Parts: sequence; structure tokens; C-alpha cells
Amino acid sequence: MEFKPHNPAWETRLRSDFTTERYMAYLDARLTRLEPGRAEIELPYRPEVTQQQGYFHAGASSSIADTAGGYAAFTLCPADRLVLTVEFKINLVAPAIGDRLRAIGQVVRPGRTLTVCDLKVFAISGKNEVLCAVGLQTLIYVNAKAEA
Amino acid sequence: MEFKPHNPAWETRLRSDFTTERYMAYLDARLTRLEPGRAEIELPYRPEVTQQQGYFHAGASSSIADTAGGYAAFTLCPADRLVLTVEFKINLVAPAIGDRLRAIGQVVRPGRTLTVCDLKVFAISGKNEVLCAVGLQTLIYVNAKAEA
Amino acid sequence: MEFKPHNPAWETRLRSDFTTERYMAYLDARLTRLEPGRAEIELPYRPEVTQQQGYFHAGASSSIADTAGGYAAFTLCPADRLVLTVEFKINLVAPAIGDRLRAIGQVVRPGRTLTVCDLKVFAISGKNEVLCAVGLQTLIYVNAKAEA
Amino acid sequence: MEFKPHNPAWETRLRSDFTTERYMAYLDARLTRLEPGRAEIELPYRPEVTQQQGYFHAGASSSIADTAGGYAAFTLCPADRLVLTVEFKINLVAPAIGDRLRAIGQVVRPGRTLTVCDLKVFAISGKNEVLCAVGLQTLIYVNAKAEA
Repeated sequence: MEFKPHNPAWETRLRSDFTTERYMAYLDARLTRLEPGRAEIELPYRPEVTQQQGYFHAGASSSIADTAGGYAAFTLCPADRLVLTVEFKINLVAPAIGDRLRAIGQVVRPGRTLTVCDLKVFAISGKNEVLCAVGLQTLIYVNAKAEA
Repeated sequence: MEFKPHNPAWETRLRSDFTTERYMAYLDARLTRLEPGRAEIELPYRPEVTQQQGYFHAGASSSIADTAGGYAAFTLCPADRLVLTVEFKINLVAPAIGDRLRAIGQVVRPGRTLTVCDLKVFAISGKNEVLCAVGLQTLIYVNAKAEA
Repeated sequence: MEFKPHNPAWETRLRSDFTTERYMAYLDARLTRLEPGRAEIELPYRPEVTQQQGYFHAGASSSIADTAGGYAAFTLCPADRLVLTVEFKINLVAPAIGDRLRAIGQVVRPGRTLTVCDLKVFAISGKNEVLCAVGLQTLIYVNAKAEA
Repeated sequence: MEFKPHNPAWETRLRSDFTTERYMAYLDARLTRLEPGRAEIELPYRPEVTQQQGYFHAGASSSIADTAGGYAAFTLCPADRLVLTVEFKINLVAPAIGDRLRAIGQVVRPGRTLTVCDLKVFAISGKNEVLCAVGLQTLIYVNAKAEA
């Protein structure tokens, strides 16, 4: 499926927006790839994002998965609106062990009000990639002024 | 519903376990209340856990909600097993604005293998509490040795 | 939490609406209780609604759970709007064995556009009630004319 | 991803099993395609499976989606085990209007105990197919004897 952004300045707006996400910066998460309907966020390994066994914490995986889906929907967002997550569900299907995590958000059903994204998280060690989480997310476009 | 822990040393084990969660420490999340079948985690406000509008980031809310549910299930965990999140779903029902967030994990269906928890997150400003997220989570008890 | 319907004729409208649900009639599901923010639907046991082991089919439990949540949201629906399910998640926590199932939809977060419901399904055998499913559902109020 | 069934007689077992699903027969749902890790179920249009507007009822879509995922997991099930749905989440992304629905269950993460399936439902009118629901499902393999 090919997607056409409504806002010609979508990429500039989105990249600028990402720099104001304090939480993403605090985790050291990076926006690594962006195209209409799709966004990727990577999280390098650090002890600060791990749980008891030393794996990436499920909260950290979920955070970048939710954010990747949010930015995937954001690529298709009209200029006068902004994106909020309504809800998401995530299955943690394998231990998140590796040099870094890559979360991919992909729009599966764009809409005027609601958009649905598919979420995937891979744990990467060198050239090896293991699917460690899959999810499904609902987002809503709201009036940017009303929210501010 | 009243729950009886299988492991008499559950509270000591759980509190010790929480201190090894690097990610929870990094977010400055605290285990504030614990009883059989229930756990509460609080997250004080800091710019480091916010999104673009200055609210708590959905990833931060989800992280403490998932962890609260994990510890709720952990209170009922046999001594030779440990708890992993299978999946969770969370609805972000109001902006997470306040001095701190309180996530509550409550076992609704304990099981020998799988346990289901209800998740709630409140945004607290002084004496005011607003429900800002609700969730549902599935957890599994696995052999502690096989995992290590 | 107490809920106030926006439409004074909510109950008449809702009961009339239920009679046009061909699928509910085909399953022999009944609307057994109704109050603002809450709806109950019961499904008597019949071989036609069972799976291989002779229990109620998860699809049947899910169907009445989704519908109970839909009518719970419907009780708070403005007169010029109607309710659609955006998504739901359901955990099947025990075998659904009994004389009948009772699904309860309860609004946990009403909204102008989106509403979130808690779903529960009990398997009832005489005086014995067993929780067999729990769920969480998102619904949307849409313009009744635009939909028709 | 290619999947290898553990049970050489998987297809015979599965087709025989489907004939004992009273609920599927009652809805007139048919198992239309089967391969390792994947199952398709179709539901022809009939007023009996519709809601108020005359579309397929969300409960009917969800029922065949859950069942398609169950049979997808069943293709990989060891001979001495059976499959139960732990939970599923489904987003209803477009009105389910058409001659029939086709639900596709696809294993995305097979496991010894838990398996995760991707669910899709298409509304088909002649040659036109519209994605009307997407879901994510967790299933468990349990001991066939213990369950019986």
C-alpha cells in the first residue's frame, strides 16, 4: 500500500517534533528511518534500559514501539492536526537481547479520524535480527489548536 | 478476591528483585505499595519522562503499568519460578498531567501457568487523581533455572 | 462513577435497536439488564453456540461481550449519533461451561468521541458464577446520518 | 517464514476437528484454505450474521478471525496437544459489507507453549476485497488428555 502525505512539509515538521520528545532523548532513542506511512526508531543497548536479567526492559521496547507507530501515523497527519495514541497492544515474543532494538511502525489502515498501525520490534546483534515484539495500535488525529 | 502467596518469602524476594531493575531506577519509578495480588508503582514528574506537550509520555505510563502488573503477578509466584509479560494492551484515556503517576496492577485471574492482571494509571496533582490509562495484561510463570 | 445519559429517550431507542440485531437474535442472546453506562447480555446454552469440547465457543463469548460493551456505550450516546466498536481485546480465562453466559459491559471512561468499556463474561450454572472472560473495548460515537 | 508441522497427520486431524465445531457450522462458516502456519475461514452473507445496519456483525467477524488464528496455530500443534485461545485483540477498520467475509490467521511467532497469530478479515464483493478487521492473538498448546 502506498501512502500520500497530506502535509507537504510533513518530514520537517516530524523531525522537529521528535527533537522535543524529552523521554525519547532520555532513553537515547533515535529516529532512524522515515517514509510515508512508516517510521523506525532504534534504541542502543545500555544498562539503563534493562530489566533484572539484563535484557531490554519490556517498557523500553513498548515505548519505542508506541512511538514508532505514532510517527508512522504522523507522516500522514494534516498540518492542522496532531496525533495521539488511543491504545496499543503488544506481545513480547522473545527476549530482547542485543546491541540495539529497532521498532517499526507501519500504517495498516489510514483514516480521517482514526489510524491503525502494525508494530514490530527486532533485537539486533551484529547482522542478526530477531523479532522480539509485535503489536497493534490505534491512533487519533485531533485538532492541534484545541490540544495546545 | 483474596490471594494467598505460594512463597512465604515473596515480599523480600520481590523487593530485592525491584532493586535490580535498572530501567525502573533510571525512570525514578518507585514501588510504593505491595500486597498479595496487587502492586503499585509511582513515577514522579520530571521533564525526562515527558513528550512534546510536556505531559508524561505514553511510553513512561505504559512502562510503569506493565511493571506494576508484573509485580502483582510476582506476589503469587512460586519460589522456583519467575514472571514474564506475555502481552499487554493499554488505553490512554486522558492526558497524563500531574506531580506524579500511580500505576496499579491487580491480578484478576491467577493461574498455574498464565495470570491476567488489570492495569490502571492515575495522574496525581496534589489531592486530585485522574484515571489516565487502563489496561489488561497476560503474564506467564516460567522455570527460573531454565530462564537463567 | 455515575453516568447521565444525554438522550432522555435512550432506553427506548436502545431496546428498539437491539430488536434489529439479527445476529444477536440468531444466537438467542438477550438484553437482560440496562442502566446508564452498563449493559448485560445473556446467552443460553445450546449446542449451536459450542466448540469441539462442548463449551461455549470463544467467538460466542466474544460476540456477546462486544455487544454488551457496545450497548453500555449506547446508553450515553447523543440522540443524533450512533456507536461503533473501534476495537476490543478479550482474555478467555476459564472454560465457558454452564447453563448460560452473562456478558457485562461497563463504561470506564466516557468521552465525546471515544468511550472505553470494561468487559466481563461469567459462565453460570445454577447459582454458581465463574468469570470466564475479561476484556477492554474502545468505541466511537459517529454521526448517525453520515453512517446511514 | 516457513513452518513445519510436528504432527504428520495434522491436516486430517484438523479437518476432522473443524466438523465438530457446532458454532462454525451454525454460522455457515467454511474452512477454505489450509497450509502450515496459516488458515482461512469464509463466512457467506446472510441476514442471520448481521447487525442493525445490515453489515456483518463485529461478533461474527471476530468469531471467524479467532477461529482462523486457532486453526493456523493448530497446523503446528503436536499430536498429543490441543490449542486454546488465550486472548485476542481486533480492530474493526471498515464496515464489513459484501457477499462474504474471509478471515486469515497467520502464525507470526510459533512457540512450544505460546503461539502468536496475526489476524486479518476481508469483506469480499465479487472481485473487490476490502480489509475490514486486523487482529493479534495469543494461543496456548495444552495437554490434550488433561483437557478432556
